[in-house]
This record gives sequence, structure tokens and C-alpha cells, in this order.
Amino acid sequence: MVKNFKLTIEYDGTNYHGWQRQPRAPSIQQEIEAALETMIRQKITLIGSGRTDAGVHALGQTANFKCETHIAPSQLQKGLNSLLPNDIVIREFTQVSSGFHARYDAKNKRYRYCILNHHLPGAIGRQYAWWVRTALDTTAMQQAADVILGEHDFKSFEASGSPRSHTRRHVMHARWERQTSDRIIFDITADGFLRYMVRNIVGTLVAVGLHKITCAQFQEVINAKDRNQAAVTAPAHGLFLMAVSY
Amino acid sequence: MVKNFKLTIEYDGTNYHGWQRQPRAPSIQQEIEAALETMIRQKITLIGSGRTDAGVHALGQTANFKCETHIAPSQLQKGLNSLLPNDIVIREFTQVSSGFHARYDAKNKRYRYCILNHHLPGAIGRQYAWWVRTALDTTAMQQAADVILGEHDFKSFEASGSPRSHTRRHVMHARWERQTSDRIIFDITADGFLRYMVRNIVGTLVAVGLHKITCAQFQEVINAKDRNQAAVTAPAHGLFLMAVSY
Repeated sequence: MVKNFKLTIEYDGTNYHGWQRQPRAPSIQQEIEAALETMIRQKITLIGSGRTDAGVHALGQTANFKCETHIAPSQLQKGLNSLLPNDIVIREFTQVSSGFHARYDAKNKRYRYCILNHHLPGAIGRQYAWWVRTALDTTAMQQAADVILGEHDFKSFEASGSPRSHTRRHVMHARWERQTSDRIIFDITADGFLRYMVRNIVGTLVAVGLHKITCAQFQEVINAKDRNQAAVTAPAHGLFLMAVSY
Repeated sequence: MVKNFKLTIEYDGTNYHGWQRQPRAPSIQQEIEAALETMIRQKITLIGSGRTDAGVHALGQTANFKCETHIAPSQLQKGLNSLLPNDIVIREFTQVSSGFHARYDAKNKRYRYCILNHHLPGAIGRQYAWWVRTALDTTAMQQAADVILGEHDFKSFEASGSPRSHTRRHVMHARWERQTSDRIIFDITADGFLRYMVRNIVGTLVAVGLHKITCAQFQEVINAKDRNQAAVTAPAHGLFLMAVSY
């Protein structure tokens, strides 16, 4: 009998060209598929909740795959974690109903973006935060972030040349928090994200925090529905896919 | 006029064979000396507060060097940070009195050891913590840690074959703290440390936390003054040199 399995995956994206399998570049998907195939001795196709770009990390990426096996989920998880490189960890591995689809059934996703805001860069943990050396005005950044709450057309924050049929997304949560004097995080939850959307929003909100643009100008960037209006794309290594809800 | 400069250095030890310059292996000392020589155009000898072993990290290593230069300390710091690889950051760079010696004048040092205590390993930050999968009894570990407070002969916790003339050290602070449900840190301050001393103490305290040995047996390990009595050496990548006091 064919079973359907759901995985929750943590990974350090530093050494990968993103989630998605590619012909000549290492990917998380390919690593997990190869490890599964070693254990189950069948061709496996893993369906991720969505792509993450090269260098982006995850604490709670999700995926599913179907196969016939008598190996228990806990044994599959254990085996996978011993076969996988140590920058990929399977945090959960459960059997789910046959209809479950990691991408189509995703209700919303939560991302976190981490910034080191100090006049000096960091050596420890430099792989996990964007270094912004000038002091950021997080109050202004939060005021601008409030503008994106609700349903909007996020075309201005989409990677150029993306083939999405529509660019409206619903943002339920968008919150800046200064965790320590030099560490700032941004949590954002939406029913879906366009390609580069979080990194383009963060890059533009940082422009607000540096007083390069005003909150009113941030609103105009959204209204323009034009990618060229947004500021720089924040680098991949500060971004974490935290959780996918179903 | 010859000036004396003091540096405070953060580094990620992952890719280095320790602080100390070596003929055919990358070291922090050599990287900083080479960057200084590029700027100052003189042969520079950096005196560290002490060695750190291969893979050990630092947030507050200190060092000094003497040279004749008209470049301001702030400019030297800026130049160094732009020349150095991004896993080494000069956090402070100041001119000090000619008599200052980073090693001889060190009054005490503080180290931190980080443990991830969870049944699953971590992918994010795996370079910065020892993964101990079995739940640790931190109350027992603290009880045993209290035993090392004060002046003791720490010969049992010294790397075998070390050439120290005497092995008595004074420990002023030794504290376990559970920061989150799966993250445990150990802070230890002493007037000096023998080679591998922190890692051997941590390895043996973890044996207490796993109930492999009792607190009384931990006391016996110290009393034995014999390296073979101690438990495993905790791995280098969980250890951070936090600060050196003068």
C-alpha cells in the first residue's frame, strides 16, 4: 500500500543552491531524495512546500512524498538523519493521509529575517544575519511594515521576470523586534510569498530605517506595482523559513 | 617612536588550526600579522593572551604588538577589518602603555562552553555547540562545578604531555545555565587555564549530568591528579574565549 509521509526540515542553506533539485548544483531536495532512495530503494520525488533560494535557511521547511515501505516513520527519520550531511536535519517525519500535498495544502508561511545592526561586523554567526552597520530606526520600520498588513498586490516586491499569474498576497503578521542592542529580527506571515518578496520588502524597509525613504514613499513603492521602485534585495543569508501551516 | 597596541578579537575558529602561527596550517595569529604587515609595511609579531586550540572560537581574545607607525588606531582597525577574512573581526584597537604584555599581564580569562541538549542535532549553529542528545541533569552538573571553585591542582584536566611547570589554578566562577529548553551554557573564569582544561572539565561534568559518574566521583577525579581519570574531552567547536581581564 502506498503511504504518504510528511517531513519537517531544518537546514543551513549556506552550501546549497536552494531547496529545488537542479542539474549541476547541490540542493536540499536532492540530498534528501538521495538519502531516502538509499534507505527505501525506490525512486523518490519529494514535494516541498515551495522553493527557498540559494543561501536561504530553514527551521521548518515541509515536504511530502509517497512510497510503499514497511519501515516505520521513526526509523526512516533516524536513518535519514544519519545519512544526511550535518547541515540538514529532519525534525519531524510522520505518515499523513493520502491526500496531503505539501505545496497545494499550505495555508500560510512564516519567515524570519535577521539583521546584525552594529558598526562592526560579526565573525560568530555571520552566516545567519545581514550586517547593517548604520543604526536603524525600527520605529519607522514598524510603521512602514504595518502598511503591508492585509491583502495587497506585491508586484513591486517580486523578482523581475517571475512568471506568477497573480501577485496579490495576504499578510497576516509583519513585526520588527529588537532582540538585543545590535540584533533585529523581522517576522512575516502570509498566505504565500512571491519570489524574493521577503528580501525585497526587508531591503526596502531597511531603506526606511536608514531614512533614505519615508513611510509615505514606502506606500508609494507598493502602489507603483513596479519592481524598479523597491530598494535593494536583502541578502539571502539573513532569511529563515520558520514554519508552514496547513 | 615605538608604540604598543592592544587588540580585542572575535573569531570563528572553524576554519583555523587555532590561534598560534604554524608552518603549514592557517591560524588567526598569522592572518592578523599578515594584514598588519600589509598596512604597516613592517614585520609584526603579535603576542596573544594565550593559545586557543584548533576549532575553538573567541569573542574576546586579546593581543598586543609593537611598531612605529603614524597611522591612527581607528584607521588601523578599519584597515584590518577590511583586509581580514570575514571570520576574524577586530572589535577594539587601542594604543596602550609600552609595558603592556597581552600574555604576562592577563589577570583572568573567561570561557563559555555551549551545549545543544536535544534528541535531534541542529543544522543552524551546529558549528557553535556540542550536541548532547540525552537529557542532562544540570542540577548535578552545577553541584559538581561548585567543587572546582577556589584554588586546586587541575592536573587531571590537563592535556596529556603538556609541559606546564605547575598545574594549580584559581577558579573564581563556574556556572551552568539552561538558557532555553535545549540550550545549556557553562561559564568559567580562572586566573589561567591548562591546555584542554575547560574541555576536559566540561566533558567530565557532562558525565555527571548523564549520571555516568557521581559528584563524589568527580571530586575523586580532581584528587587523583591523573588525566586518565577524567572523562572525554568535550569537542572544540562548543568553546568560546569570551574575555581576558587585565
